[in-house]
Amino acid sequence: MNMLVDGEWRTDAYQTTNEDGAFERQTTNFRDRIAADPDARFPPEAGRYHLYVCRACPWAHRTLIMRTLKGLEDAITVDYVDPYRGDDGWQFTPEKDGCTTDTVNGADYLREVYVEADPDMTGRVTVPVLWDKQEDTIVNNESAEIMRMLDTEFDDVAENDVDLYPEGYREEIDRIIEKIYEPINNGVYKAGFADSQEAYDAAVAELFDALDHWDSVLAEQRYLAGDRLTEADIAMFTTLVRFDEVYHTHFMCNHRLIREYDHLWPYLRDIYQTGHISETVNMDHITEHYYTTHPDVSPKRIVPKGPDPDFSALHGRDDLPGGPPADIA
Amino acid sequence: MNMLVDGEWRTDAYQTTNEDGAFERQTTNFRDRIAADPDARFPPEAGRYHLYVCRACPWAHRTLIMRTLKGLEDAITVDYVDPYRGDDGWQFTPEKDGCTTDTVNGADYLREVYVEADPDMTGRVTVPVLWDKQEDTIVNNESAEIMRMLDTEFDDVAENDVDLYPEGYREEIDRIIEKIYEPINNGVYKAGFADSQEAYDAAVAELFDALDHWDSVLAEQRYLAGDRLTEADIAMFTTLVRFDEVYHTHFMCNHRLIREYDHLWPYLRDIYQTGHISETVNMDHITEHYYTTHPDVSPKRIVPKGPDPDFSALHGRDDLPGGPPADIA
Repeated sequence: MNMLVDGEWRTDAYQTTNEDGAFERQTTNFRDRIAADPDARFPPEAGRYHLYVCRACPWAHRTLIMRTLKGLEDAITVDYVDPYRGDDGWQFTPEKDGCTTDTVNGADYLREVYVEADPDMTGRVTVPVLWDKQEDTIVNNESAEIMRMLDTEFDDVAENDVDLYPEGYREEIDRIIEKIYEPINNGVYKAGFADSQEAYDAAVAELFDALDHWDSVLAEQRYLAGDRLTEADIAMFTTLVRFDEVYHTHFMCNHRLIREYDHLWPYLRDIYQTGHISETVNMDHITEHYYTTHPDVSPKRIVPKGPDPDFSALHGRDDLPGGPPADIA
Repeated sequence: MNMLVDGEWRTDAYQTTNEDGAFERQTTNFRDRIAADPDARFPPEAGRYHLYVCRACPWAHRTLIMRTLKGLEDAITVDYVDPYRGDDGWQFTPEKDGCTTDTVNGADYLREVYVEADPDMTGRVTVPVLWDKQEDTIVNNESAEIMRMLDTEFDDVAENDVDLYPEGYREEIDRIIEKIYEPINNGVYKAGFADSQEAYDAAVAELFDALDHWDSVLAEQRYLAGDRLTEADIAMFTTLVRFDEVYHTHFMCNHRLIREYDHLWPYLRDIYQTGHISETVNMDHITEHYYTTHPDVSPKRIVPKGPDPDFSALHGRDDLPGGPPADIA
């Protein structure tokens, strides 16, 4: 797999699995923070920051959702890369439906943006990227941290009165986000990229144990953290919405479909129908990305005619206590 | 892919797809007939004939089902090859669960049996094979024809009074077997082995149109040809029983599961529960075969934790007119 090494683009520099055949995700490089603090290096300001995302990517998707729920569409600009990631990495292909140019740096490939931020960069070129147009650098490329910053630091700029990390829930939200990360969000990748039967079996057992667990939790409460929509739901959503179309088949997580779960399936529809979240889901980009970008998993690069789940069907979860904030209900 | 050329084993001699990327199945070589006629070269006799099958193969499975429904277990012997088909083709691996030696010819590989029958054989080495122990040759290796011979020519030898090609239904049975072959039985292979998006799209559209059609037919009647269990049901069954575990994921026929069909799913359970058909289904052999034998489709050769459908659940189709013959009810 490809990555930057001391600012140079190198192919096959990065091993995706360890000696046991288990997938290992590399950590991200840029971990600065936007903070609602006048002395901060990166204060929240309308028009200053920019997101680079791929609409197929579940991690980038978290930041897009937070941007729309907070009403930050005018304050934070976005460019969309091509869902197909070839040997040169993420690419800007404005001629393709739903894709854009790089309106900030004029790059052809996202790796140029990384080198612009750090000429000696070593690491993978991933989405999302939170770019600062004032300092011409990357603030952060870790999705959970970007989601958190948009949520908690932009209240003076945001159009919606939305707080998905509310006081009194914070410990629980952090606990859930961490708890679902390995078995679910990363678990589907561990199943799909496993190079040994043992690594696959372990990943899939963890994944479905976790899905069963949260299905039973959601029988009793509307959201993962209780009666309030929180960041934990966004983190769960971007994996669940891709599951039946992609992870079930492409990553061989075919033990069960999300639409076969009594509570996860209505829950998924509930989140999908909240605010403008549905508009952040581009299933064409999602399916094209996975099925064409991983020849070691799907060598024929054919995009299947998937199940096309009806995310807009009535979810019936209004009967449970709580609901989304008024501005996005 | 591998095949015999003038009796020599050759790798990569056989192209599976044409210039449009569409899968093309090669015809079988041996097309002689067993006939209940004293002057026939191959008359039906207990103990004379032998089947070579792979329990994973849907074509071979048809012959195993007919053998048990007719009660021919004592009259026709069987050997089972390894479900994994490597570079040397179908192999006898008695150390493996559910597999046997070649009890008739003592071969290590099935291709030796083909060469024994025809030293200059050119063609693919496939299952099922119907072997004549008296003339030491292959009578036939075309599954639909073997199924028909066991059904119609062995009544004097069979323990069960079962006729799955009854007078008055024959034209309809032939019509259905032919009608389901291309879109369904072969259709899943055309979807999975397609080398172009166009070939895949065409195969999958045909497949699900056909499944939808037969689902609506089975809303009104218990079996494909009406109120009688026939060969057409056997031909349909061996594809349907593999669908949710294999074709849905491995061959990317993931638009819909059989267990999501209102009538096909109870129908599948009805057939599964008829006579001793359930004992002919070895899901371990089925999943191992597909997921490990086609690296061009599933290069990691990992066998997924599939859905494990409950084929033994009540099917409720006894309310419809008709039912299986008394001997196998």
